[in-house]
Amino acid sequence: MKAHMIPVSALLLAGCAANSAPVATAPPPPPIATPAEAAKPPVALQYLYGSPEAAIAVRATNARIADYGVARIKQRPKDSVVLAPGATMDAPAFEPCGDKPFAAVFDADETLIWNLGPMRYFAEQGIAFDPKIWDAWEKTGAGKAAAMPGTVEMLGKLRAAGITVIANTNRSAANAKGSEGTLRAAGLGDFKHGETLFLMGDDAGGSSKDGRRATIAAKYCVIMLAGDQLGDFSQQFNDKDLPAAQRMALATSPAAATLWDKGWFLFPNPVYGPWEKLGWDDAFPSDKKWEPSQ
Amino acid sequence: MKAHMIPVSALLLAGCAANSAPVATAPPPPPIATPAEAAKPPVALQYLYGSPEAAIAVRATNARIADYGVARIKQRPKDSVVLAPGATMDAPAFEPCGDKPFAAVFDADETLIWNLGPMRYFAEQGIAFDPKIWDAWEKTGAGKAAAMPGTVEMLGKLRAAGITVIANTNRSAANAKGSEGTLRAAGLGDFKHGETLFLMGDDAGGSSKDGRRATIAAKYCVIMLAGDQLGDFSQQFNDKDLPAAQRMALATSPAAATLWDKGWFLFPNPVYGPWEKLGWDDAFPSDKKWEPSQ
Repeated sequence: MKAHMIPVSALLLAGCAANSAPVATAPPPPPIATPAEAAKPPVALQYLYGSPEAAIAVRATNARIADYGVARIKQRPKDSVVLAPGATMDAPAFEPCGDKPFAAVFDADETLIWNLGPMRYFAEQGIAFDPKIWDAWEKTGAGKAAAMPGTVEMLGKLRAAGITVIANTNRSAANAKGSEGTLRAAGLGDFKHGETLFLMGDDAGGSSKDGRRATIAAKYCVIMLAGDQLGDFSQQFNDKDLPAAQRMALATSPAAATLWDKGWFLFPNPVYGPWEKLGWDDAFPSDKKWEPSQ
Repeated sequence: MKAHMIPVSALLLAGCAANSAPVATAPPPPPIATPAEAAKPPVALQYLYGSPEAAIAVRATNARIADYGVARIKQRPKDSVVLAPGATMDAPAFEPCGDKPFAAVFDADETLIWNLGPMRYFAEQGIAFDPKIWDAWEKTGAGKAAAMPGTVEMLGKLRAAGITVIANTNRSAANAKGSEGTLRAAGLGDFKHGETLFLMGDDAGGSSKDGRRATIAAKYCVIMLAGDQLGDFSQQFNDKDLPAAQRMALATSPAAATLWDKGWFLFPNPVYGPWEKLGWDDAFPSDKKWEPSQ
């Protein structure tokens, strides 16, 4: 569709409204947009948090997860979908299931819940992500995050089938009570730190979720992983030395393709993520450059 | 995931880099960002066009479309998935199939192809969507758009199954040759204006695709519609007087839910669309407002 397309720079201009006034006659603009300046949220936030188009995509992913989970446990899978320690996408190997009970492992932020409170605050204030503000959010956010569309129903179906629902998130272990409360207040039921809620600081792995995944897979047959970023599936994708083109190749390789939508489920999140590192030539192949002739 | 989250205002700042320099000592900033100022594309463009996360989502949608199409024609459906004239989501009724041949109907922009050429140009120049530039793009873009991930394979499977592939787009009928060439150069095969390519200006409906859908459904059993915006499914969703909350309710109603992923397929596009109209309170429910305590 293009008829209603007034794109791209609506997004650029959202934060620049005051600065795009004639500067000669206006007072010096503040360095960063303030709430009064941005009449609307940036387009990625409008899309994700406000559009039926995104709500439909999220609901459809949740429906696939529920259907997959309920069907998959009837097959009594031999292996978890958690890569074994040291295994990579080039030579995948998985934790064995044995007769362990079934679990489904979810990231939390922008996977189970939408962080409406701080996302609006950051955008309205025109400030960058601030770890101190985020820390306050983890502590005090209960009631101000929302379950994503269809997530309550999806979790209900998994739990009714006897699947343990676990969250593995990079929220801080120091704020466990706050995050438990946030998930509960969003209608997602009880998550308990150390049992069904795994947090950054639980082990020495820092922001890598691999160690926590191994801990979970030692106790459970993990039938699915779900998240909004590739690090929710394997830390291999987060290697700082991995060039963008190789990250793309690895994530869309035949080995990975056998997992997407079949054990590994990805939610849309255009608002924040590792893609923020991408430069012009990463996002746009140079052979596709175009400009109108004069 | 949040460990790498430096979000939201990366997007605001992308177009504001020069203006966020100290204004007292810098020369008056230009009203709009110029290429040298934006070191990176806005986050929505980074995500859609550059991230494996988006590529995986698009590939998965294309895989579902191919699987659905090949399976669906074996069931010899009684009805098209095109709403009959006058029918609405509240009281849906569909065009009958009879013994018409099968067709799959796609939007073009951000559904079959990614418009990498003008999207980079708009963003680098920091200019709003410009209909004159877009007109030039429709005429001269062949080779500078890319087939979306998995789209070539998906179309190949549908055509091999005997399904006619049709594009219904709001590109201009006056630029039919350019759009035919753009689709062909992207590796998507032949689309012929009036037969397998329907354009704005083909009838008196303007940007509404309903009339063109009716024309197609008169000749074909339309087993699926695919697009990135709700107008690719029914013009009802584009009613200018439809409040955002009602558009959401209509698109996620039980009647619509029976169609999503089962005849109606939606591709992610956080870059542009009707959601650009949404204000703060449309995208963020007021009961979810939050700020850090001082």
